[in-house]
Amino acid sequence: MNDLTIRELKKEDLWNGFLTSLDSLRKTSSIDENKANAIFDKINSNNDHIIVVAELNGKIVGTTTLLIEQKFIHDGGIVGHIEDVAVDNKFQGQKIGEKIIKYVLDYARNRGCYKTILDCTDEIKPFYEKIGFKNVANELRFDYV
Amino acid sequence: MNDLTIRELKKEDLWNGFLTSLDSLRKTSSIDENKANAIFDKINSNNDHIIVVAELNGKIVGTTTLLIEQKFIHDGGIVGHIEDVAVDNKFQGQKIGEKIIKYVLDYARNRGCYKTILDCTDEIKPFYEKIGFKNVANELRFDYV
Repeated sequence: MNDLTIRELKKEDLWNGFLTSLDSLRKTSSIDENKANAIFDKINSNNDHIIVVAELNGKIVGTTTLLIEQKFIHDGGIVGHIEDVAVDNKFQGQKIGEKIIKYVLDYARNRGCYKTILDCTDEIKPFYEKIGFKNVANELRFDYV
Repeated sequence: MNDLTIRELKKEDLWNGFLTSLDSLRKTSSIDENKANAIFDKINSNNDHIIVVAELNGKIVGTTTLLIEQKFIHDGGIVGHIEDVAVDNKFQGQKIGEKIIKYVLDYARNRGCYKTILDCTDEIKPFYEKIGFKNVANELRFDYV
């Protein structure tokens, strides 16, 4: 684990481990190349939508997404939302996920967030509690079918 | 309840019931006017950050926020995030909250979302379950102190 770097996503990462890291959540690397490039451009143009990656020995092995939300409440408070935390199956158990989360927590703090939130299942909850998250409410979902 | 309209927030709504509606969540209408205007301009410039209001007889009595998130997973899927659902205390119990939620669910569907999610406490969960939401996971929060 000498050469682990946590940083923001670049376009050249897409096919260098980024999409295959997301496969650990749900098959993603089968996406059309033009479509993936267009999604990158769209997200990259939004300063409040940040994708972070973990690069190990020249290859992307993990990722997460941070949305920065400006609110009116809390005297114009700012909230971070963590989404899609993923580590390539072949690299799990090396604390890469923990390092990614700590990186985005710091990033969100520097952007002025008073809290950062995420949704997770019971199974993964202890991982986040160890980092300092507290279970405060429920995630509800409405599916369009 | 003759003249209830659900629509997107305009700048002139800020001091016409919008901020006082948010007071039902947490005191918000004490915000500095220039700061509130600047927050409006920032949010209004982001096509993926939509604030919806309920206007009753010329005054704003409720609101919610919808964030539209473009993902790579789910073949470039789009997810709606509902935040800060509020109805002015004086107008609760008139199904205004339900109408606001149904409006944003339709809006998110039209924007291509495959799901819309939100976080809520145990107390308010039955309200959302009646609309068709399902409790799928936990909301965790990290506070910067």
